[in-house]
Amino acid sequence: MDIYFLIVPASSIIALITAFLLVKRINREEEGTELMKKIARAVKIGTRAYIKRQYSVVSLFFLAVFIILWILVFFKLLPFLVPFAFLTGGFFSGLSGYIGMSVATNSSSRTANAARRGLNPALRVAFSSGMVMGLVVVGLGLLDLSIWYTILSFVYRGLEESARMKVITSTMINFGMGASAQALFARVGGGIFTKAADMGADLVGKVEVNIPEDDPRNPAVIADNVGDNVGDVAGMGADLYESYVDSIVASMTLAATASLGKKGVFLPMLIAALGILSSIIGYFFIRAGEKASQATLLKALRKGIYITGLLVLISTGIAVYLLLGKEHMGIYLSIITGLIAGILIGFFTEYFTSDHYKPTKQIAKAAAQSPAVVIVEGLGVGMNSTVPIVLTIGFAIILSYFFAGGGNFEMGLYGIGIAAVGMLSTLGITLASDAYGPVADNAGGNAQMAKLDPVVRERTDALDSLGNTTAATGKGFAIGSAALTALALIVAYRDEVARIGETIDLSLLNVKIVVGLFLGGMLVFGFSSFIIKAIGRTAGVIVNNIREQFKDKRIMEGEKDPDYAEVVRICTASAQKEMILPALTGILSPIVVGVILGIEGVVGLLVGTLVTGFSLAVMMANSGGAWDNAKKYIEKGFLGGKGTEAHKGGVIGDTVGDPLKDAAGPSLNILIKLMSMVSIVFLRFIMTVHIF
Amino acid sequence: MDIYFLIVPASSIIALITAFLLVKRINREEEGTELMKKIARAVKIGTRAYIKRQYSVVSLFFLAVFIILWILVFFKLLPFLVPFAFLTGGFFSGLSGYIGMSVATNSSSRTANAARRGLNPALRVAFSSGMVMGLVVVGLGLLDLSIWYTILSFVYRGLEESARMKVITSTMINFGMGASAQALFARVGGGIFTKAADMGADLVGKVEVNIPEDDPRNPAVIADNVGDNVGDVAGMGADLYESYVDSIVASMTLAATASLGKKGVFLPMLIAALGILSSIIGYFFIRAGEKASQATLLKALRKGIYITGLLVLISTGIAVYLLLGKEHMGIYLSIITGLIAGILIGFFTEYFTSDHYKPTKQIAKAAAQSPAVVIVEGLGVGMNSTVPIVLTIGFAIILSYFFAGGGNFEMGLYGIGIAAVGMLSTLGITLASDAYGPVADNAGGNAQMAKLDPVVRERTDALDSLGNTTAATGKGFAIGSAALTALALIVAYRDEVARIGETIDLSLLNVKIVVGLFLGGMLVFGFSSFIIKAIGRTAGVIVNNIREQFKDKRIMEGEKDPDYAEVVRICTASAQKEMILPALTGILSPIVVGVILGIEGVVGLLVGTLVTGFSLAVMMANSGGAWDNAKKYIEKGFLGGKGTEAHKGGVIGDTVGDPLKDAAGPSLNILIKLMSMVSIVFLRFIMTVHIF
Repeated sequence: MDIYFLIVPASSIIALITAFLLVKRINREEEGTELMKKIARAVKIGTRAYIKRQYSVVSLFFLAVFIILWILVFFKLLPFLVPFAFLTGGFFSGLSGYIGMSVATNSSSRTANAARRGLNPALRVAFSSGMVMGLVVVGLGLLDLSIWYTILSFVYRGLEESARMKVITSTMINFGMGASAQALFARVGGGIFTKAADMGADLVGKVEVNIPEDDPRNPAVIADNVGDNVGDVAGMGADLYESYVDSIVASMTLAATASLGKKGVFLPMLIAALGILSSIIGYFFIRAGEKASQATLLKALRKGIYITGLLVLISTGIAVYLLLGKEHMGIYLSIITGLIAGILIGFFTEYFTSDHYKPTKQIAKAAAQSPAVVIVEGLGVGMNSTVPIVLTIGFAIILSYFFAGGGNFEMGLYGIGIAAVGMLSTLGITLASDAYGPVADNAGGNAQMAKLDPVVRERTDALDSLGNTTAATGKGFAIGSAALTALALIVAYRDEVARIGETIDLSLLNVKIVVGLFLGGMLVFGFSSFIIKAIGRTAGVIVNNIREQFKDKRIMEGEKDPDYAEVVRICTASAQKEMILPALTGILSPIVVGVILGIEGVVGLLVGTLVTGFSLAVMMANSGGAWDNAKKYIEKGFLGGKGTEAHKGGVIGDTVGDPLKDAAGPSLNILIKLMSMVSIVFLRFIMTVHIF
Repeated sequence: MDIYFLIVPASSIIALITAFLLVKRINREEEGTELMKKIARAVKIGTRAYIKRQYSVVSLFFLAVFIILWILVFFKLLPFLVPFAFLTGGFFSGLSGYIGMSVATNSSSRTANAARRGLNPALRVAFSSGMVMGLVVVGLGLLDLSIWYTILSFVYRGLEESARMKVITSTMINFGMGASAQALFARVGGGIFTKAADMGADLVGKVEVNIPEDDPRNPAVIADNVGDNVGDVAGMGADLYESYVDSIVASMTLAATASLGKKGVFLPMLIAALGILSSIIGYFFIRAGEKASQATLLKALRKGIYITGLLVLISTGIAVYLLLGKEHMGIYLSIITGLIAGILIGFFTEYFTSDHYKPTKQIAKAAAQSPAVVIVEGLGVGMNSTVPIVLTIGFAIILSYFFAGGGNFEMGLYGIGIAAVGMLSTLGITLASDAYGPVADNAGGNAQMAKLDPVVRERTDALDSLGNTTAATGKGFAIGSAALTALALIVAYRDEVARIGETIDLSLLNVKIVVGLFLGGMLVFGFSSFIIKAIGRTAGVIVNNIREQFKDKRIMEGEKDPDYAEVVRICTASAQKEMILPALTGILSPIVVGVILGIEGVVGLLVGTLVTGFSLAVMMANSGGAWDNAKKYIEKGFLGGKGTEAHKGGVIGDTVGDPLKDAAGPSLNILIKLMSMVSIVFLRFIMTVHIF
């Protein structure tokens, strides 16, 4: 077993080294003209400024929670390493986002410059940048998990195996809580920044003064590009770091309760390690000729992902056989279930959001009718998309439960957790295909502002749109795994109650559980509304500033640069202020509900949030994605193309979808997990203090 | 006790007689000019044609279910009177809608004519028409309940009290199922008709050819007015009949399980009877001087409602004391909890949807910014409104549970059911304040088409807008009671399982329950998307027909009447076709899920639907209401008034909100209850046939 264990840190170090080599390769690319460099620098400075501010606000928050956790440790309500686990989880989640973002800002002008030579060189730079993000997320995630596992195994070496596994996993859950808290701040803050900047830029730029997107005369143009980096890149990095780590930690926790002991606790990390190695191999299979078309590029990307999947399939089968023996091959079937469910969800997401299929085409047609119809149609498509996706998750839960457990409750639940790990095992490469989109988007902005040949912008647009399609797969994995992981965490909550020696009445008709369920369902809507309205408010402030700046006629005539930094400053300040309430809601709601309704109320709250949040998150992601692509479809020239009423309708749909798909929706996935972990950490406290 | 019982049929007969007298009084009003009569007749003919078609389709459905129920009776899976209970429930629900609608179509030209004299006479006619609807709904509902109760008491007179109560209530549940099925068809079919006609009329009329609303040259104008009657009037009538009857039946069923026996079963009917008498008295307190302003009218309406509430408060207190004795006064507190929760929900609904408060004003401001912002803001407001409303329901559940039961589980659940009955006890008068809105709306259409003095239209608009405000209260009661009733029905499901002698594992972490919960959450979105998309499709067909008709130039020049009947025919055919799938979803989903996942899966499904559906229904209702009133606010002259960009934005918001608030949202309330009752009826079948 110890020899197996070495695979885990080894593969994460290999991932980090590969990422480092890729960064060096990217940096060897030319940055392009002076103007391109200047623009890239402006975006980088804005991004750094935001991240610095964000991390200092979040640090204060982490400090406060750290102190609270110490108080709980002091009263013996938590094991003593918990506060540190919490801190490191937050730190590494933030670090993943930071590295991904630094590489992304480094790559945008380089991608634009490569696009002057052709589509393929541009893809190479952009995709390498995405791959760095993917490898950093999985590499750092698994490295930190293995370090904590080693430390805790040493600290608690005196305990017998079963007790040791329990204390190890219940400490490591806090590592997940730190990661989730950091991710929630990143997604909410970054989401508010990027969508408010986007909306503000469009509302004045496109609507009032009629200048195209990414026009350098628009004072919000740099903020818009900064937003892509802080929201879509840093936010996504922290988010997927969290998804990845949480799915592993949750399964480890379940294993400690099931009868598998140390090997069961170790298996999730091993699956992850094999996934990393497979992703790196898969990456090297992505090749396309110099003259490749968009379709061949997509095929090349898919090939890399499929090879990775196949390698995971083979290697985890061997691993389960060697580690647990023939009698536990049902667990292997659970891994496969997770992998297939992820692929299916990705497929359905693509069906509902890609302009190759009917739903998005119909939205485009609706855009030609009227703005109201495009909105109604888009909401309908998003709602409709929940049907196959929830059915897939439903089947995945049932199958992975029965495969792993054959009816045994504890083993079955472990199977559900393992399915989530299986689903996320290929994250190294799937995240790359998700993360290179914003790089291409920024490269397009850079090309536009640097007044490069329009063909460059066309190429980066092609990449961006390709990114939207592959991103659908990535989002499918993230969203599906969130449901499974959250479920595993809720089970872990119950286990924790049992471990303390208390019982909990889990009856669905316990009135406290019922009320908790209602509150959970509501929380999801309330939380989303906070974010959506915050974006609207911030956009309003930006609109006023842009109008103010435009009073100086020289800006519109191109004789004077607008004050880009001022808009960045407004976005930063506003996002920082507005992110507090939603983030606190996520953290405080299980505590407040617990204090009033006790632990039954908390379980109800968690399940209600999960059930409603999952469908709502799917709907928001897919309505938003479909609107976005319907607009792009019109921009390609269908239904009259740019400048028509249809295009105007498409832009309205896209603008409505933006806050849903890039801010509220992905935040919900994190929210559910964060709430579960907060509940576990504050469990003993709630059991001591509650009203009903 | 027998003397108490007489109050029940007596008060329902009093309600029906009062309604009859009001109809006679309305009919004494003048119908106005020849043109007004002609228009009213066209609307009436269209409405009748639709209803005839609707009821013949639904009859086939009822026949099919009747046969299926007989088969279940034949295999001894159901008591033998169940199929008849099902039929009569459907029949009376349809009858309530039909009568309400007939009165409404009779009243529109009369209201318009009265509006020529002033605001107050118009209010009298319109409100009397609404009151007829309210009294018919509660009168027929309670009459039928008491007849069934009497018949069943006689048929099962040989059984001892406890067994007799159980068989009586489990037969009467089917009465509720019939009512719910009818209501679902009415809401879905009527909703598709009215909103498609509305959208179609606006899309060509306002957007393409630039003629005002209700312009007689628009071929869809009669269909639009017909729609108000079949959707907002007949649909609402069937819907609230269902809410009313179900809340009473559900509490009666819970009483049969709790230890209260016959008296407990009887109490819900007694509360309803006292509510009817109070409503009639309250109605006679509504008086306003001939020169009353809108504000005084609102005050007068409120006075009537408050007096009714006060009378219910006093009389039910005495009733509980006399019937159950001092030791059960906790149940009285549950009634009060329900009443207060209803009022609070009404208040919050008003806050979020009336233009007197910030949320709707902000939507109006957003409309001035851009169509995208008005949509985002409206979604945000609707989502936000779930917070206080769900909190209110949460508190109502906890409080009514503890008040009635003092911790006893069965009694506590009975308390929740009783709270719903308390909430709906004033329905006679609250429904009136909800139902007169569409009459005023139609009167406005009539005035416009008949080219009356613009001041007439202004007056009917004032009434319509007043109706929106009071309707908020009515909707609050309907939506809140739906949550409580559905919960009571789910409990009844569990009781039914126990009655059969089986046990059910209700653990929230039972994997079948978990999957059921996910499916329930999804179902709500899928169901809504069916309805929304059906409206979009139907509107598309109408748009094509209108464009076709406009090719004849004489129509636009006013030289030739358009073919109104053709549009009505299209709407009718399309609504009938499109309503089948959503309605079947509601009925078949618990059976399909049951066959696959067994009874645990069904319970999960029901709870998932309830929890997600409640928040989503609240959101849809309030987003839609707020958009509607924001548009009206702009039309009053704020933010530039009619014809501005702000107004265009407002119209877009209103159009998006229409299918949400008047079709999908209210259907969800019915769906949840129908699914619960179908589950109960097919329980024995599912227990015999299931896969997992």
